[in-house]
Amino acid sequence: MEPLRLIIRLPSWCEQEERVGTVYPTALDRMRLVVELAARNVEEGSGGPFGAAIFGASSGRLLSVGVNSVVRLNNAMLHAETVTLMRASARLERFSLAPADGGNGGELVELYTSCEPCAMCLGAILWSGVRRVVFAARRDDAERLGFDEGPVFPETFAYLRRRGIRVESGPLRDDARKLMERYRAVGGAIYNG
Amino acid sequence: MEPLRLIIRLPSWCEQEERVGTVYPTALDRMRLVVELAARNVEEGSGGPFGAAIFGASSGRLLSVGVNSVVRLNNAMLHAETVTLMRASARLERFSLAPADGGNGGELVELYTSCEPCAMCLGAILWSGVRRVVFAARRDDAERLGFDEGPVFPETFAYLRRRGIRVESGPLRDDARKLMERYRAVGGAIYNG
Repeated sequence: MEPLRLIIRLPSWCEQEERVGTVYPTALDRMRLVVELAARNVEEGSGGPFGAAIFGASSGRLLSVGVNSVVRLNNAMLHAETVTLMRASARLERFSLAPADGGNGGELVELYTSCEPCAMCLGAILWSGVRRVVFAARRDDAERLGFDEGPVFPETFAYLRRRGIRVESGPLRDDARKLMERYRAVGGAIYNG
Repeated sequence: MEPLRLIIRLPSWCEQEERVGTVYPTALDRMRLVVELAARNVEEGSGGPFGAAIFGASSGRLLSVGVNSVVRLNNAMLHAETVTLMRASARLERFSLAPADGGNGGELVELYTSCEPCAMCLGAILWSGVRRVVFAARRDDAERLGFDEGPVFPETFAYLRRRGIRVESGPLRDDARKLMERYRAVGGAIYNG
């Protein structure tokens, strides 16, 4: 049997938006990028209404981006968050992005995402060495659209906090929510039924 | 900037063990395969002491295998379970393995794993369409070795059960536990600290 080729690629429009090293100084700049990625993913028909990116926490330098790629790549694990996490690790050639592990040249990194992460992504974040996550739309915004967030409980966040991981609400919630509604309006697949 | 190549490959010894379509009739046959994969991963130095595979539930036909590849591929998400899930989906060209979604030619699939899945993998299983998971070593066996299993609670399993997913203890717990101890004895990296 032919060896299976399992390649994780961004949509071609999105490769061009991954301007590694570009500085996004403020929380609003960082969130605007990921909400725009999510919006573009809907417009281009390349996936669900979700975008994410990883930045140096103090420098604001972009390390990687991700967009939801579940349907495009036939892979239920390819949420925006997991895509950007895998790309950051591949770029740095390190499985951990934590400064203590050498991660991003010693700088803490932050993950921005257009929507609160699901159970799988929170687990991936824990293993990734990322210590701060900022989201726009909230869990109940996604659930209202029909997306399931999986087994996430108040204890989940307590557990992550004990591991030094903060998961916080940030700017642009309304923008992120509206584009999820737009996704539904254009008949986008709600794949986690 | 050069486009990033993110390719998820099995170790070469493992490609040869992925005998797609071979029938593993009993629970013991299926578990023996994944425990052997885990043992071989340790012996070959290609990763942590964890193996997994996906089978047709009634036919016992092998669909895909996976071994822990976190360190080898610099990717914290590549647990044995996520690797075999991604390979099964890539092979079937479907993001869901559930029969209702067309999955594995209408047949239910089962995931066998040498160790109880972590929080991330339980999330990935939920999204994958797999409805039954059977594990050998238990959560506390892994934790005793220093591996963290992440935010998994009794409510997590209740949640999965409501979605029709059973996560069950199976045969060969002692074998799977012993090879985790062997991994520690040969100085294997305990990477989720």
